[in-house]
Amino acid sequence: MRKLTNSLPALVLTLAPSLVLADEAATPAAGAAATDTVFILNSLLFLVGGFLVFWMAAGFAMLEAGLVRSKNVTMQLTKNVALFSFAAIFYYLVGYNLMYPLGNWALEGVLSSVWGPGVLEAVGITADQADDYSYASTGSDFFFQLMFCATTASIVSGTLAERVKLWPFLIFTVILTAVIYPLQASWKWGGGFLDTMGFQDFAGSTVVHSVGGWAALMGALILGPRIGKYKDGKTIPMPGSNLALATLGTFILWLGWFGFNGGSQLAMGTVGDVADISRIFANTNAAAAGGAVAALLLTQFLFKKPDLTMVLNGALAGLVSITAEPLAPSLGLSTLIGAAGGVIVVVVVPMLDRLKIDDVVGAIPVHLVAGIWGTLAVVLSNADASLTTQLTGIAVIGAFVCSVSAAVWLVLRMTLGIRVDEEDEVNGLDTSELGMEAYPEFSLS
Amino acid sequence: MRKLTNSLPALVLTLAPSLVLADEAATPAAGAAATDTVFILNSLLFLVGGFLVFWMAAGFAMLEAGLVRSKNVTMQLTKNVALFSFAAIFYYLVGYNLMYPLGNWALEGVLSSVWGPGVLEAVGITADQADDYSYASTGSDFFFQLMFCATTASIVSGTLAERVKLWPFLIFTVILTAVIYPLQASWKWGGGFLDTMGFQDFAGSTVVHSVGGWAALMGALILGPRIGKYKDGKTIPMPGSNLALATLGTFILWLGWFGFNGGSQLAMGTVGDVADISRIFANTNAAAAGGAVAALLLTQFLFKKPDLTMVLNGALAGLVSITAEPLAPSLGLSTLIGAAGGVIVVVVVPMLDRLKIDDVVGAIPVHLVAGIWGTLAVVLSNADASLTTQLTGIAVIGAFVCSVSAAVWLVLRMTLGIRVDEEDEVNGLDTSELGMEAYPEFSLS
Amino acid sequence: MRKLTNSLPALVLTLAPSLVLADEAATPAAGAAATDTVFILNSLLFLVGGFLVFWMAAGFAMLEAGLVRSKNVTMQLTKNVALFSFAAIFYYLVGYNLMYPLGNWALEGVLSSVWGPGVLEAVGITADQADDYSYASTGSDFFFQLMFCATTASIVSGTLAERVKLWPFLIFTVILTAVIYPLQASWKWGGGFLDTMGFQDFAGSTVVHSVGGWAALMGALILGPRIGKYKDGKTIPMPGSNLALATLGTFILWLGWFGFNGGSQLAMGTVGDVADISRIFANTNAAAAGGAVAALLLTQFLFKKPDLTMVLNGALAGLVSITAEPLAPSLGLSTLIGAAGGVIVVVVVPMLDRLKIDDVVGAIPVHLVAGIWGTLAVVLSNADASLTTQLTGIAVIGAFVCSVSAAVWLVLRMTLGIRVDEEDEVNGLDTSELGMEAYPEFSLS
Repeated sequence: MRKLTNSLPALVLTLAPSLVLADEAATPAAGAAATDTVFILNSLLFLVGGFLVFWMAAGFAMLEAGLVRSKNVTMQLTKNVALFSFAAIFYYLVGYNLMYPLGNWALEGVLSSVWGPGVLEAVGITADQADDYSYASTGSDFFFQLMFCATTASIVSGTLAERVKLWPFLIFTVILTAVIYPLQASWKWGGGFLDTMGFQDFAGSTVVHSVGGWAALMGALILGPRIGKYKDGKTIPMPGSNLALATLGTFILWLGWFGFNGGSQLAMGTVGDVADISRIFANTNAAAAGGAVAALLLTQFLFKKPDLTMVLNGALAGLVSITAEPLAPSLGLSTLIGAAGGVIVVVVVPMLDRLKIDDVVGAIPVHLVAGIWGTLAVVLSNADASLTTQLTGIAVIGAFVCSVSAAVWLVLRMTLGIRVDEEDEVNGLDTSELGMEAYPEFSLS
Repeated sequence: MRKLTNSLPALVLTLAPSLVLADEAATPAAGAAATDTVFILNSLLFLVGGFLVFWMAAGFAMLEAGLVRSKNVTMQLTKNVALFSFAAIFYYLVGYNLMYPLGNWALEGVLSSVWGPGVLEAVGITADQADDYSYASTGSDFFFQLMFCATTASIVSGTLAERVKLWPFLIFTVILTAVIYPLQASWKWGGGFLDTMGFQDFAGSTVVHSVGGWAALMGALILGPRIGKYKDGKTIPMPGSNLALATLGTFILWLGWFGFNGGSQLAMGTVGDVADISRIFANTNAAAAGGAVAALLLTQFLFKKPDLTMVLNGALAGLVSITAEPLAPSLGLSTLIGAAGGVIVVVVVPMLDRLKIDDVVGAIPVHLVAGIWGTLAVVLSNADASLTTQLTGIAVIGAFVCSVSAAVWLVLRMTLGIRVDEEDEVNGLDTSELGMEAYPEFSLS
Repeated sequence: MRKLTNSLPALVLTLAPSLVLADEAATPAAGAAATDTVFILNSLLFLVGGFLVFWMAAGFAMLEAGLVRSKNVTMQLTKNVALFSFAAIFYYLVGYNLMYPLGNWALEGVLSSVWGPGVLEAVGITADQADDYSYASTGSDFFFQLMFCATTASIVSGTLAERVKLWPFLIFTVILTAVIYPLQASWKWGGGFLDTMGFQDFAGSTVVHSVGGWAALMGALILGPRIGKYKDGKTIPMPGSNLALATLGTFILWLGWFGFNGGSQLAMGTVGDVADISRIFANTNAAAAGGAVAALLLTQFLFKKPDLTMVLNGALAGLVSITAEPLAPSLGLSTLIGAAGGVIVVVVVPMLDRLKIDDVVGAIPVHLVAGIWGTLAVVLSNADASLTTQLTGIAVIGAFVCSVSAAVWLVLRMTLGIRVDEEDEVNGLDTSELGMEAYPEFSLS
């Protein structure tokens, strides 16, 4: 999802207008769209893609609210609304300019020298005033990128549900969205060293999904499992309170993913671009279907009973798996790449339980493990992708996110504490931390 | 929803490139959009229309999960996710090329000679490489058409809820989406004999909705009613467990229908096309409103109490009713056509109960009966539509779908069995078949 | 949201075609989009914006269904589906032409002389037949405007929940959507006297949101509080039955607002327009985030426990606050304007309770008070906005809506009665008025 051109971020443009190179309104080829039309269509792609990815915030909220027990639903909803809101503010204040330092590095390819809030183009610009006339509006790009950053934060909340304190979680979210996500994203999408070395990650199997997954894994390790989850060597099932909500959340995420992957084409102003977006939509859908069917068949085969939560996570893992390269594979290969994601879910969920890593909603198998798989699967379709480079990118980003996340979680644990009291956890976070139940009238068994 | 041009399907293009006629990038008229822009806008219509129709899959899932009893909710959700996923895979493997055999018939206007998986255009095509430069990208068309096929399958699951076994149902779905739907759709939208004879069905009152309805009716007849539904000549009410979900599902379907009907204009690159799409959006909304209000007034009048489930189904029946011709009627006529759909629901629901046809969610009145009505109502606005031809199309498709569906259901009944055990049905499919409750914590009265 | 050109409404065009001035298909500047493309993109903005605002109807339904007690959920759902449907019919029959009487006033700038149903452009128009070739299709404009009218009606239903009778409420809705809303909207967006005097309200903080809020306030005053809400000088909490639904509704509204504010740019055919829409999307999101975070921090600070319902309403109040001017402010100022909206919610909700004004969902703080704030906040970013004029606009519209609404509510109270019987209210409207529970199987504590 690297920006197509080498335009500088808005702030820099504002501070140093003399740096801006005039884009020539080149005469389009016969039959080609007018330059304005290209700019409009590219921006429109970001806006539509962006609102679809925004919608994923609702998807995570519903998925997680459905998969936690009813005594923690209000808290899970609160966290999801709050994390998105904090992400929006801090990505604007710090993250956006940190992420797109194209040509403006403090440390070659690693650290941006642009710190400061995002600035949009002026109102009512004309073509010659657009920051990047040959590409798209800054506002549409900001809107689209923000949603990716927020997605990363959404991934974390599910894993740590039912036991993490609200405010330490939100402080982690602020650091994740202001610094951790944008910094590593700059290495690939900001034109940094991972991009230079040929690491490929079209829409973010690694840059978004595994980052959220690593941060969640560190949190889960440091936070520990829920009380009573692992007892006498057994894993005690703690079924989600509302599978209709969880299914709704999955459908919302599936829908939003068309914007996530399709928008990452970054351009819609040529025949080739729109045909590519079309391929991406079709492939993204195929991978989700493959993941769902694989999980359905595998749980039927292994457990004799299909498992809906595995099917939902299978679809999501299919989506994560195709995210690193949703364009190049054929429909058939996309289905298979997604199906492997579905298999991953069914295999990894019990594996984590054996390791006593308590991931309430299955975000680690879905976003981290399938994210790694998807990043590696790029070599199946892209001749110019190198397995070594893909592994390097995964490892570098993983090492960075793990070490910084672990440090932040540890500092938070030592200072504010990150875990609610035992009694509060048993009673549920809704009563103890918020004093507000999600379903106050329904009797519970 | 016939394709605008006589392009051959992608597979054939791949196999026989010499058949492709070069599209001239004709010089557009003064003021007209550039050829590339037309291609982009047409493709964009399919993508946006497609994701809206995808969203209808979530609508069906929520509607049905809300209208079944809580002991069958997990199963209904599982079926909806699985049927969509299987539809995606089998429409790709078989259905798509079976449905668009334009100029490539094995049996004149009846059976395609193209069997094989769909193939999208290559990555990064230029204008001269696009399969159909004067129209839209193959990928966007595939994506859009797939969603229609999946919709047909979604219709069936509601009627047969609470008693049909998972796997036989999914096998039926595979046959429906791989063969039954595409084959009959080819007769109209693939340029087959129904299209040739002048049968009109703009977005599929018959080709989609009544097809799903016929398949559901055959299933309901062969499966029989739920235990206890009809006792001593009385119909025992089995109220849905969650009307908030059912209402959400209806709103989702209403939203998706703008893509369903609007996208079926198939083109957005001219002033006339976008104005037509606008008419379709406005008319579609008017028909839904008419259906809801008619059902509200009629249930108030007949029962002295408005019935929300009838209002929801009334809105949906209004939408189905306008689907055969959402473009030509005025806003007023659209409202009335939809209102008749709402009346149909209120009249037909008890009628089916008298016939002991147990349709759990009311899909037969909504999709089949209102689908027939909508197909006939085309003659109200279209001078060139013939009542006889419309009846012929309805009858031919009905006869085909009924006979094949009945055969499939009967074979499934004889082999795997299609109905769960009596005890399992009484206990609910969630516990017996899946071992997973949708609302495990809520006490039930 | 004033129409860009002085085109007459469709009905007038039909009756008096000689009034139509031929739009010249001016040769576009080098690089500019072709005239057809501009028309298509403008219409597309209305269609996409329109379906997003339609989706807000579902948002209101879910928000309100989540915030009422379970014994009134079916009624709240019924009201929301019905009010939207009636709005669609009566805005078509009366409201649309009443609202856009541009140049066709019976009373200068105050009362339209155009009464009669909306008429769309003919099917398959060519550029020279389009009612307003330089702008957008009539159908897309109608579709978009209708959704704004329906939104106004949706606002009222929440405040009056749990006690107002269905049919009197729906009759009020009809008057609101056929006359009250369109008439006052014409004063600003139809080019009436408020527009002439320089009143600024980009997407309707006043014209939509405060209008709904005033109508709700009048209803609440005349209807009185729910039984038992205020006892011995205390406010008795009546918590909502389903906070997951309420959160879903908030996310739906947030998503729809991108269409609400973004679509109100009214044009997408130039570089400047699409860049402005992008700013609007980003600012709208920033304001919602600001409102949510402000309410979160303030409830944490005041009550020591964050309050999810306040956070949800804070986000919505942030959205309402930015609606009067979502384009001009910077991202930072937008966040602050929204944050002030969040503060308003936390302050005004208990204030209304002290005044014994029973607003079940908090629609008065969110839509009325934040709507007023947002309309005044325009002066923070727009040098040409006058505080006096903004206050005048707020006061004139407030006085008009309050007096007409109060009169209608009083007449309804004297004739049909507007409040259910005491016993029915205590038992819940679902059983007493509808005979249908929303969650019939769940035991209630």
